[in-house]
Amino acid sequence: MPHLTLEYTANLAIDPAAALTAINAAAFDSGLFGEADIKSRALCLGDFRTGVQTGARAFAHLRIALLSGRSADERKQLANAALAALMATLVPPAGHELQLSVETVELDRASYAKAVVHG
Amino acid sequence: MPHLTLEYTANLAIDPAAALTAINAAAFDSGLFGEADIKSRALCLGDFRTGVQTGARAFAHLRIALLSGRSADERKQLANAALAALMATLVPPAGHELQLSVETVELDRASYAKAVVHG
Amino acid sequence: MPHLTLEYTANLAIDPAAALTAINAAAFDSGLFGEADIKSRALCLGDFRTGVQTGARAFAHLRIALLSGRSADERKQLANAALAALMATLVPPAGHELQLSVETVELDRASYAKAVVHG
Repeated sequence: MPHLTLEYTANLAIDPAAALTAINAAAFDSGLFGEADIKSRALCLGDFRTGVQTGARAFAHLRIALLSGRSADERKQLANAALAALMATLVPPAGHELQLSVETVELDRASYAKAVVHG
Repeated sequence: MPHLTLEYTANLAIDPAAALTAINAAAFDSGLFGEADIKSRALCLGDFRTGVQTGARAFAHLRIALLSGRSADERKQLANAALAALMATLVPPAGHELQLSVETVELDRASYAKAVVHG
Repeated sequence: MPHLTLEYTANLAIDPAAALTAINAAAFDSGLFGEADIKSRALCLGDFRTGVQTGARAFAHLRIALLSGRSADERKQLANAALAALMATLVPPAGHELQLSVETVELDRASYAKAVVHG
């Protein structure tokens, strides 16, 4: 951990590699995590819908899953830093409203299982 | 929020746009959310497995993530309404057993970060 | 439930069907679940990043979502069994460090909605 999952709608101009680099840097700069523990992925959403009206809308959402035990302040600061990294990386399509959001969620520490193997 | 994520197995006949329209309408009709806040996506599962036996099986699962603070009754009613919308939209393949499920999960309100930008 | 979601980076040699068969068997052998209730999917991560340094890295992560009410011991044993199944199935690419992780998370039982239909 942490596991970072960035979802973005397919109408959004984005360089996924640059976005992941930016959010990983934000996570690393928080000082909360070991460098190699930060694992992120980006998922392009081809089928999406916002609300019930028609309109030019896009969204991106980042989920940060981290082991339980961080303080509320640490989680809030981490989310804010990741949001800032996203805002610096993503460009809304012309004429579109882009919603950006970041959530943090705790992983259950007691049952978390992990192994590292080398090829 | 809310964030709705519909997963469906690739052997299921589905119009993702119609399914998202139906579940967004169910979420909006609940009266719990602002119209533009309802953000949904559909993911087709190409690699899936049910159980350990062979058999003609399909499933669809909807995850509704909403900010903490809704009552248990509100969450249950929302899940039931979304399930009804899915049942009206999805058709099981001939000879298949189709499992439909809906979960609700709370987003941590204290650390949730959001911004809206216009292109 | 349970819902099992296996994510794996695209640089990892994997037979998704074999991996899902292995983790479903581990879940079934736990004795905690009905056979047909075990629903798993595998997602290949084409856009991913580990840490902030360059390096030959891969990861796979399994999320096991199960209805609330299992004991901490049951969850830990289930995660360990699933991790063992993954380790027996996945092969790290030559020269790569492969991180494998398993989390368990509870589904809210009160609002969980489900239906089974036959085509």
